[in-house]
Amino acid sequence: MAHALRMARRGLGNVWPNPAVGCVIVKEDRIVGRGWTQPGGRPHAEPVALAQAGEAARGATVYVTLEPCSHYGKSPPCAEALIRAGVARVVAAFVDPDPRVGGRGIALLRDAGIEVTVGVREDEARMLQRGFLSRITVGRPMLTLKLATSFDGRIALASGESQWITGPEARRHVHALRLSHDAIMVGGGTARADHPSLNVRGFGVVKQPVRVIASSGDLPDLPPEGQDFGPLWQISGTDAPALMAELGRRGLTRVFCEGGGQLAASLLQAGLVDELVGYGAGVVIGAGGRPAIGALDVARLADAPRFALMESRRIGPDLFHRWTREA
Amino acid sequence: MAHALRMARRGLGNVWPNPAVGCVIVKEDRIVGRGWTQPGGRPHAEPVALAQAGEAARGATVYVTLEPCSHYGKSPPCAEALIRAGVARVVAAFVDPDPRVGGRGIALLRDAGIEVTVGVREDEARMLQRGFLSRITVGRPMLTLKLATSFDGRIALASGESQWITGPEARRHVHALRLSHDAIMVGGGTARADHPSLNVRGFGVVKQPVRVIASSGDLPDLPPEGQDFGPLWQISGTDAPALMAELGRRGLTRVFCEGGGQLAASLLQAGLVDELVGYGAGVVIGAGGRPAIGALDVARLADAPRFALMESRRIGPDLFHRWTREA
Repeated sequence: MAHALRMARRGLGNVWPNPAVGCVIVKEDRIVGRGWTQPGGRPHAEPVALAQAGEAARGATVYVTLEPCSHYGKSPPCAEALIRAGVARVVAAFVDPDPRVGGRGIALLRDAGIEVTVGVREDEARMLQRGFLSRITVGRPMLTLKLATSFDGRIALASGESQWITGPEARRHVHALRLSHDAIMVGGGTARADHPSLNVRGFGVVKQPVRVIASSGDLPDLPPEGQDFGPLWQISGTDAPALMAELGRRGLTRVFCEGGGQLAASLLQAGLVDELVGYGAGVVIGAGGRPAIGALDVARLADAPRFALMESRRIGPDLFHRWTREA
Repeated sequence: MAHALRMARRGLGNVWPNPAVGCVIVKEDRIVGRGWTQPGGRPHAEPVALAQAGEAARGATVYVTLEPCSHYGKSPPCAEALIRAGVARVVAAFVDPDPRVGGRGIALLRDAGIEVTVGVREDEARMLQRGFLSRITVGRPMLTLKLATSFDGRIALASGESQWITGPEARRHVHALRLSHDAIMVGGGTARADHPSLNVRGFGVVKQPVRVIASSGDLPDLPPEGQDFGPLWQISGTDAPALMAELGRRGLTRVFCEGGGQLAASLLQAGLVDELVGYGAGVVIGAGGRPAIGALDVARLADAPRFALMESRRIGPDLFHRWTREA
């Protein structure tokens, strides 16, 4: 299952509106097939792994990071494909909460006489599928808020100068994170002030994330969709929950917000930020600099949004730290 | 020498105006004596280790984190004590830049026929003695600036509420750091607003650090010096270099500054901060909160004070990070 989770990870940012699933088929202690959800969300992980395994799938054990699907969508159901292939056992990380599946995939397998185990590495798998789960269960994508700040939490000098607070290693890391999300989002102020390119650079030809500008105002000329730039969506950002619900309706599962301070504040205030990602530089700008996050309506410290530390490490000269929303 | 450095560390915060030195005496692969500078700076590390070794010192090798002293101060010179004890070899981390020593300790030892090696683990030893070296070479103590902030660099809500942004583990860690410094310093505004106790709690009976209030204004009633509180010094803080020079003249080697924002800004602006220590909490306060550091006069990012990351790790729920001034 650990290997299947690594496979699954390859699909993140690439498969929306579908979940990024990984599948490993093992027979007599040898891996005979591996697969992950392909770009655009199809084919699913299981048929890819089954095709690789061929006849070896008969009597094999299948590890899959999400319950195999049971419904006819744009692909035939994976549960049926597994039955047809004659596998002996299926190990799934957890039950798909999608109302079109919801345990029916597992029931199909069991009815066909296949041994099914559910709940292996479930916490890891749920964290990996956090975006898909968020879309299915609360109707909005998972939201990562990224800030690259000085030691004292500033994103620019009073003059606006912000290039570069963090080093090239951190900036490359940001592009890798962008790649693992379905969309990159900024507020209208940032779009107008910085003309940000909002694409992934330095990783060859990739599926570019959607560019979301949360603003109902005029936008500057931004490059059209093409090989180097994803689709451009302008959506009103004044109501944060409505904005996120609209992104969920459009199928996004993982959104990477890069500011500005006002959009960040309204998303935090509404409890919509699932992960905080910080890059801290060893530079001090002082109170004259531009704050990373706009004003929040927080009367007492106990009411302020709280996050739990997940990891921290050095990236180049900077300190990378990642936090997850407390329940 | 690694062991001698660990011994030396025990003296930090406890031995000003003297350096915190460690000494280990080894004979035939066995440690026969260990010592470190005692509270108040005397006895030095070498006589402590020699007393423990007794007759075993004859023909032994002595590891010491700083050149043994050669001058008659309040103690007789350690170089002479080593000669009298009949040691065969002395390994010193580096030459003491104190003008009363400056290589003369080593010369005395060599003249007596003792083999001397200098420059072992010198970088570590210099970092450990950073405060003493600063006092001797530039006439001011080493300065550590500590900030406990929200994810977005705030130290309090707009209302002033700041208890508690960080958790009890981080607060205990702050007390351990206070204990390793000669003095705790705050600005007058912080002293008046917070009536801070500026002492070490939770470590039993300890030598309490000096309390420095950098202000020429009126101060609130603060507890008198006693078992639980160090001496109270009020020194004008309007001129940061003059303030630090005065603390150096009074013999301090390591000062721990805990704010407020204006004092921190003036110390940073003057290039007087040697180490930054941050405790970052997973809470977001927003731009309405009180900034950690006041306004700096920084026209270009290239002119802003820069620090290099030394370490980062989780302490309780918080992220601890430590940075050193870039040369």
